Amino acid sequence: MSSTGLPQHISKQFDNELEYIRSRVLSMGGLVEKQLTDALSALMESDIELGSAVLDTEYEVNAMEVSIDEECTQILARRQPAAGDLRLITAVIKTITDLERIGDEAERIANMAIDLAEKQGPKSYYIDIGSMGNYVRNMVHGALDAFARMDSKAALEIAGRDPGADAQYGAIVRQLITYMMEDPKNITSAMDTVWSARAMERIGDHARNICEYVIYFVEGKDVRHISLEEMEKEVKG
Amino acid sequence: MSSTGLPQHISKQFDNELEYIRSRVLSMGGLVEKQLTDALSALMESDIELGSAVLDTEYEVNAMEVSIDEECTQILARRQPAAGDLRLITAVIKTITDLERIGDEAERIANMAIDLAEKQGPKSYYIDIGSMGNYVRNMVHGALDAFARMDSKAALEIAGRDPGADAQYGAIVRQLITYMMEDPKNITSAMDTVWSARAMERIGDHARNICEYVIYFVEGKDVRHISLEEMEKEVKG
Repeated sequence: MSSTGLPQHISKQFDNELEYIRSRVLSMGGLVEKQLTDALSALMESDIELGSAVLDTEYEVNAMEVSIDEECTQILARRQPAAGDLRLITAVIKTITDLERIGDEAERIANMAIDLAEKQGPKSYYIDIGSMGNYVRNMVHGALDAFARMDSKAALEIAGRDPGADAQYGAIVRQLITYMMEDPKNITSAMDTVWSARAMERIGDHARNICEYVIYFVEGKDVRHISLEEMEKEVKG
Repeated sequence: MSSTGLPQHISKQFDNELEYIRSRVLSMGGLVEKQLTDALSALMESDIELGSAVLDTEYEVNAMEVSIDEECTQILARRQPAAGDLRLITAVIKTITDLERIGDEAERIANMAIDLAEKQGPKSYYIDIGSMGNYVRNMVHGALDAFARMDSKAALEIAGRDPGADAQYGAIVRQLITYMMEDPKNITSAMDTVWSARAMERIGDHARNICEYVIYFVEGKDVRHISLEEMEKEVKG
């Protein structure tokens, strides 16, 4: 095994192909991370221009998903990979789907940022949403980092943060509902904020999914739909 | 090609394996369709017991996803499929992810049904949500039917219904916001209904995704992220 956890092959060309696929996933991840960072800044700073810029990168992310997917299919057909190589390819196919959906959610946040900036309503509840945004952005960064190093322990740690995102989401929605009840004039802008929080909660789920694929690749165990405690046993066992 | 559009192999055993995978996807689809039907009934009829029954089948759906995925990986490793066979396997791997997520959304609707039944608020806006529920359930049924027959024209027709689901969703949310503004006492039950409508809108997206995988298998073209007009050219061209 190399330092990245990827197996070395007799065919140097095959190694290069796998390494290339891996680097493409990380480029796509970088692009999606930037979308998310910009969408959050647009939201917090009511920056309509930055929000629009996020929407403009959708095509690029989609094109990367389709082309990496196609490259994976070609490797499956041409190299007929087995064991760890096959797990890597299936992990990549799934990871890019979740990355593309993180991009979709970032675009939803950007849309809400534009909508909210135009409304110019009160933003007293923004502190929590900003903090939740940073929380899930760190999860995405950590998941991509675990993928880059194929580090199942790091992936486990990041996956374990998902309940924290869910809890923040629940608290924010309750707070927003109270806010709507206090003054019905707040309803439309509070609803936009609800959608942003929902998008962040989903981003946490997608980051956790990516961590599960890393664990699947490294440990050879499918850890979806099991508790974090059970997942911990698979990684440490 | 057989009547299902699946290629025939010299190895009868391989044919059987592919046919088995296909039938397993359809069983999983049947289970998810039932979850959705029951969740919608629970919502419309305030049936807490039926709502709870939907939540109880989550494990079964998850287990099917994991086991079909594992069978696909084994076929990839053992049979080293190419061309149409490989497209079938990758289409199956993606289809079951979307089916599992349709199941997740059905569970969200079931949870909201339980919550709303306990609140016993006014339900004057239920006609539209019931009609949207039937609309997306028909999309799921149609997508599974297109998958069963590997019929790209049928898949195209079903995918074309997705904008209709999005439009219904937009109208329902606007109606619910008006309803919340009229009387803040309605906010919590209206929010539960918003979440149900959101879940339905996502179910429409997942049904469309499944149609795109059917088109990918039959036509050999990746039709994600393109307009319905472009998709039509790929299927009819």
